[in-house]
Amino acid sequence: MQLGFVGLGKMGGFMVQRLLGGGHEIVAYVRTAETVRKAEALGARGAHSLADLARALAPPRAVWVMVPAGDAVTQVIEDLLPHLSKGDVIIDGGNSYYKESIRRSEHLRGKGIGFMDCGTSGGVWGLKVGYCLMIGGDQETFERLEPAFRTLAPPDGYARMGAAGAGHLVKMVHNGVEYGMMQAYAEGFDILKASPYGLDLHRISHLWNQGSVVRSWLLELAESALREDPGLEKLQGYVQDSGEGRWTVLEAIERDVPAPIITLSLFERFHSRRPDSFAARLLAALRNQFGGHAVKTK
Amino acid sequence: MQLGFVGLGKMGGFMVQRLLGGGHEIVAYVRTAETVRKAEALGARGAHSLADLARALAPPRAVWVMVPAGDAVTQVIEDLLPHLSKGDVIIDGGNSYYKESIRRSEHLRGKGIGFMDCGTSGGVWGLKVGYCLMIGGDQETFERLEPAFRTLAPPDGYARMGAAGAGHLVKMVHNGVEYGMMQAYAEGFDILKASPYGLDLHRISHLWNQGSVVRSWLLELAESALREDPGLEKLQGYVQDSGEGRWTVLEAIERDVPAPIITLSLFERFHSRRPDSFAARLLAALRNQFGGHAVKTK
Repeated sequence: MQLGFVGLGKMGGFMVQRLLGGGHEIVAYVRTAETVRKAEALGARGAHSLADLARALAPPRAVWVMVPAGDAVTQVIEDLLPHLSKGDVIIDGGNSYYKESIRRSEHLRGKGIGFMDCGTSGGVWGLKVGYCLMIGGDQETFERLEPAFRTLAPPDGYARMGAAGAGHLVKMVHNGVEYGMMQAYAEGFDILKASPYGLDLHRISHLWNQGSVVRSWLLELAESALREDPGLEKLQGYVQDSGEGRWTVLEAIERDVPAPIITLSLFERFHSRRPDSFAARLLAALRNQFGGHAVKTK
Repeated sequence: MQLGFVGLGKMGGFMVQRLLGGGHEIVAYVRTAETVRKAEALGARGAHSLADLARALAPPRAVWVMVPAGDAVTQVIEDLLPHLSKGDVIIDGGNSYYKESIRRSEHLRGKGIGFMDCGTSGGVWGLKVGYCLMIGGDQETFERLEPAFRTLAPPDGYARMGAAGAGHLVKMVHNGVEYGMMQAYAEGFDILKASPYGLDLHRISHLWNQGSVVRSWLLELAESALREDPGLEKLQGYVQDSGEGRWTVLEAIERDVPAPIITLSLFERFHSRRPDSFAARLLAALRNQFGGHAVKTK
């Protein structure tokens, strides 16, 4: 099928490559010299403005948006709108907060434009393996876009989760689970590293991937990271987050569901960015105040 | 090779089956009518006492012990000892605490008997897939037993982790990681279940196994459980633990390594067994005391 594509970043570029490989016709929005080159290299048709993009697509249009969650998505949608017509569809394939997706869907419905929220997992490996797609929106639009979903996903790797927002909700919780799993591995390897046995962590990660209960794709990634740099000496222990973990915690609070380890996994990322936190200084100060315990000063 | 085997439980029975399938000769200790039948059905030779077992094995003997951690292991070893001779080896394939394995190894070394601690992962699926084996003990004994390890494990699925205790240490932390991963999935699905979308959790577990970042063998097990009983209505939310989680937390404390989510995953299991805990009653009482907040009484 024919698809417009906005957002040729790392993830978007690979997705376009997979779509082209599946025989789809892609018109990519190329605003920078870099994206022009990228689109040409991939074999996509380039459009230098969103107006051009809309003109190059036969109605009813489908435009896949793959830009960072938040203002960037709002901006692209607002800038696209004047160039779209009734029956066109926008797909948000990024990690938007599902409540924003519900709002966007309603806003667009008022203008006769369809909207699908599509949580996309698989990272930079998706090009090879396929992307796991968690999709929200109406059934009819879902079916219309199925040829693209089928190409992007591995066999059985896409499904409609429910009405607008359901796709991004499921993807959000997916990422919350991911935080917890990653933290579990991180703590386990940290404990092993502290052991006086002088254990070979790369070897262990490889061994655990052979038939053990904790084998997983994330553990394969750990194996790959530990192979390249067994002590991870080249990295700083500084971990960012990009929203889904926080929203998962907010969701747990809103629904009265205890989610202690997902919450704590998020907070451990905060910890990683505050190695000399005010909290730790206050604890040191209090120990000193009540017990005269020694403190370290700067 | 020839192996004695003590402990024809669920796990042990499957392991003997795999060993026999690999052409090894097994003499199994059969004390009960049930184990007699089991050994016969598998094609293992039965020994009705540990003395018989030792007599049926050609020195230097190797006896694999697959019984619950703790006193049962100690008992089997003490009961076996009078019937063993110098150069024989005992393999503890269960989930013993690694510090006990170090002590046992030293105790047996003083009597000229070898000891290997072998953490065994794979559960009841190991028969088909092979067991991931994490092995501690000296290199020479490891090499002597390699034919058995090779049969039990999938390709590349066994390795010597280090000196005595190292195998059970790595298995212990493996299980700690497992607690965290399981809890991450559990919380994620609980949040999804509380969503007003009425999500199909079995479908989501299946979808997540197709190319998503959280795909794993544990998620395949979740998929299987949710297929059979989507709301898990047949189960009680009561979760046992069998030691390794606790010991992982003790290890983290001993080595000054923060392991908050593994610790909390263990505590969540404690929670599951105390739905009307004294702590919760005390919280309710305190809210009532200072704020006159309503309480539920029995």
